[in-house]
Amino acid sequence: MILRSSPASPFGRKCKISASVLGLIDKIEVTKTDTVDPNGPIAKENPLGKIPALILDDGMCIFDSRVICEYLDTAAGGGKLFPTGDARWPALTLQALSDGMLDAGVLQVYEKRFRPEEKRHADWVARQKAKVDRALAHLEAHTPATGASPHIGDISLACALGYLDFRFEGIWRESHPNLVAWLDRFAEAVPAYGETTPSD
Amino acid sequence: MILRSSPASPFGRKCKISASVLGLIDKIEVTKTDTVDPNGPIAKENPLGKIPALILDDGMCIFDSRVICEYLDTAAGGGKLFPTGDARWPALTLQALSDGMLDAGVLQVYEKRFRPEEKRHADWVARQKAKVDRALAHLEAHTPATGASPHIGDISLACALGYLDFRFEGIWRESHPNLVAWLDRFAEAVPAYGETTPSD
Repeated sequence: MILRSSPASPFGRKCKISASVLGLIDKIEVTKTDTVDPNGPIAKENPLGKIPALILDDGMCIFDSRVICEYLDTAAGGGKLFPTGDARWPALTLQALSDGMLDAGVLQVYEKRFRPEEKRHADWVARQKAKVDRALAHLEAHTPATGASPHIGDISLACALGYLDFRFEGIWRESHPNLVAWLDRFAEAVPAYGETTPSD
Repeated sequence: MILRSSPASPFGRKCKISASVLGLIDKIEVTKTDTVDPNGPIAKENPLGKIPALILDDGMCIFDSRVICEYLDTAAGGGKLFPTGDARWPALTLQALSDGMLDAGVLQVYEKRFRPEEKRHADWVARQKAKVDRALAHLEAHTPATGASPHIGDISLACALGYLDFRFEGIWRESHPNLVAWLDRFAEAVPAYGETTPSD
């Protein structure tokens, strides 16, 4: 399998950590992929031009990170990262919350990357920042349990917090001690977290 | 169950159509919810301040649309909208592609809604439009089969095309006859599509 991703992508990181936890990372060739070029190869495989995308051995391309992570979980026997039964819905909702924090974080980064200074709008950036801040406050008050093994919600949250470290200088840490402790425990339990520290 | 949504929300429409197809719509109270007010009730239930969100009978709030639709599928016995086995991955990837078209469409709408005219950036809007155009071209060339019953990928695609009708005056129709025919067949097979036509 080929995973199109980049060292900076938080959604790609979800896939890499999932593959490692599931023991599948050696079956995946990770290929650094540029998404800024609208004529690059990724736009043919994923019309949205987004990474991560996973090319299966039969050539089929699946995306986005949620689909890839669940595919890998099933390939490894199923039910490890994606719980079944009542535990599924909190895990998937935590994934959705974490992905939403990432979306709101990415939009703040894109405000600078894709716009000249005079087209940047402070209210829009503040609106996205407020989403992240509310999510952090909620998670600080309701910090997830650290189970015997991480599920996809935990992996997603770790990647979201890691993205805040990477792009927003870790300023979230000062006022969220429960989440800092949670991330420390996660990183200790999941070596792939430290092995996938993002870089440009 | 309470579904927080709005008549204009394409992601809320996914949930409503799914509930109808599954025979669950009578068990759901749909509540019109404002997301522009950052202090509205939705921000307490979903820190991202986004609809749709589903409040279960025990008070737990689950989101986003993908999680809600799969929850409803499971509540109805499972495997109806979310195929199991090899058919699952194309269905989930079509959902992801359709959701991505919606994200790119919503960002174009938000460019006007949340920014004064001088802060709008034509290159950014063009970048989002290109994602939608590439997805449409891909789907026109590889139009999904119309199965005996729709899966979540079909429902998502129908909502994406319906959003283009609603917010972009249906200009996609002229150059995508296969997709127009596909949507006609979907609308005939799924009465809930016509019953959930979006409005402001």
